[in-house]
Amino acid sequence: MKLATLRTPDGTRAARLDGDHYVELDAPDVGALLAQPRWRDRAATASGPAHPAASAELGPVVPRPGKIICVGLNYRSHILEMGRELPEHPTLFGKFAEALVGPTDPVALDPASAAVDWEAELAVVVGSPVRGATAVEAAAAVAGFAVLNDVTMRDWQYRTLQWLQGKTFEASTPFGPHLVTPEELPGGTAPALDLSCVVDGETVQSANTSDLVFGPVALITYISRILTLQPGDVIATGTPGGVGHARDPKRYLTDGAELVTAIDGLGELRNRARAVSVVPA
Amino acid sequence: MKLATLRTPDGTRAARLDGDHYVELDAPDVGALLAQPRWRDRAATASGPAHPAASAELGPVVPRPGKIICVGLNYRSHILEMGRELPEHPTLFGKFAEALVGPTDPVALDPASAAVDWEAELAVVVGSPVRGATAVEAAAAVAGFAVLNDVTMRDWQYRTLQWLQGKTFEASTPFGPHLVTPEELPGGTAPALDLSCVVDGETVQSANTSDLVFGPVALITYISRILTLQPGDVIATGTPGGVGHARDPKRYLTDGAELVTAIDGLGELRNRARAVSVVPA
Repeated sequence: MKLATLRTPDGTRAARLDGDHYVELDAPDVGALLAQPRWRDRAATASGPAHPAASAELGPVVPRPGKIICVGLNYRSHILEMGRELPEHPTLFGKFAEALVGPTDPVALDPASAAVDWEAELAVVVGSPVRGATAVEAAAAVAGFAVLNDVTMRDWQYRTLQWLQGKTFEASTPFGPHLVTPEELPGGTAPALDLSCVVDGETVQSANTSDLVFGPVALITYISRILTLQPGDVIATGTPGGVGHARDPKRYLTDGAELVTAIDGLGELRNRARAVSVVPA
Repeated sequence: MKLATLRTPDGTRAARLDGDHYVELDAPDVGALLAQPRWRDRAATASGPAHPAASAELGPVVPRPGKIICVGLNYRSHILEMGRELPEHPTLFGKFAEALVGPTDPVALDPASAAVDWEAELAVVVGSPVRGATAVEAAAAVAGFAVLNDVTMRDWQYRTLQWLQGKTFEASTPFGPHLVTPEELPGGTAPALDLSCVVDGETVQSANTSDLVFGPVALITYISRILTLQPGDVIATGTPGGVGHARDPKRYLTDGAELVTAIDGLGELRNRARAVSVVPA
């Protein structure tokens, strides 16, 4: 099952992708859907108005997650090639919902930053409340997966020791296009999927999600030891090598650049970086 | 005006403190109240059922903030006594709403941590949406102030370079008792208030909020440059010297310890640390 949050003239709407059409579901967005009991059955059987997929406009697949928890340093081959040891614990930091944009929306290039970089990531979306989860419970709590680009203002990220301020700029993080449930994917809740990031036609990141040090189930187990994960919460599982900041010379997104973030089986985000000249009031 | 979130048999309720009574307002909690237009007028004039303050039970003053943004290294005298330079930019990190508890609730001592520490802080609550704020706009966006103890699992905080995981354990962060509007306070939106933390009768932290490097208005200006602050969002402005982890020998909260966090004019949090033997399902 592939779920999306449609933009309609009457506001957003959760929808199921059926071939070349979206079918509306009884929820304003996928986050609200996931908060309903038995959402899988509801989503699978509902039959609201249909919209051609080709002309549909999509928002962030979960527009207002209660929590977005990001993971750093989580691709094995990249850690090893950097000469580092594999971490004992995942590195976790936050992001807030104001950062999210839809799968074809502009990515806001804020003039406050001169170092806007890409980070293609597999996102895990939580489907039921979970606390102190075993691996089996953690797997059962996975609603599905989506693509996320943890676009990062490197100059702000490194202003201080804590990364948050470079990670949560308004309208900078594309997220979508669909929430794809695990049974559709090779590997299920331990998906082994090719991931890539392409900037202006050049492939800058390429990896497979099977290379994650802490996979989706391990992350839910670990985080749910700390606090309750809720339906609609998002875990961005980290990015592989190839970011612009680590290149020589360094390379960043500029006005008009096309950013394509794709994961096999999950679809792609196709966004254009756009300078915002004035901060919106 | 002093506002609180009451716990009643029918769920929580926003309320205004009138002398020795709380008067119910037309909102389920202070966060929901702040999201209403003209909340100051509504709160000042509403006249719902009254409850004696002495027997009232209070929840976290804003139970579910959309964002909790914490500040590190923000007391001038403490930074200087550590031999560090004053920072050019505030250090920001996140916390999630699951961490919050009310002003007299137990603070959960999770057996996963052997180093639970205190951090008395002035919390700023946002009262209107604000983006790219000038200082005047930032001051106008302050709803009021409250007391927060950013209780921290030091061992988890320092597992990795990013502090989030030690800062957001479930039911560990007392927050309240009231939201006090700026006109009630000396200094208004730049409050100069004595702050203290007392553990088992011993004063372990003592400072004045006028010593903040980045005060409430500067923080709203800075953060709103990054993203939109929304009504009910919380900024925890950082803690002065005297935390247990910096003592010799180090000192942490143990089962049954009494933690009193107070700020003149804002009231106090009086919590007992309680070991939780099993992680709640």
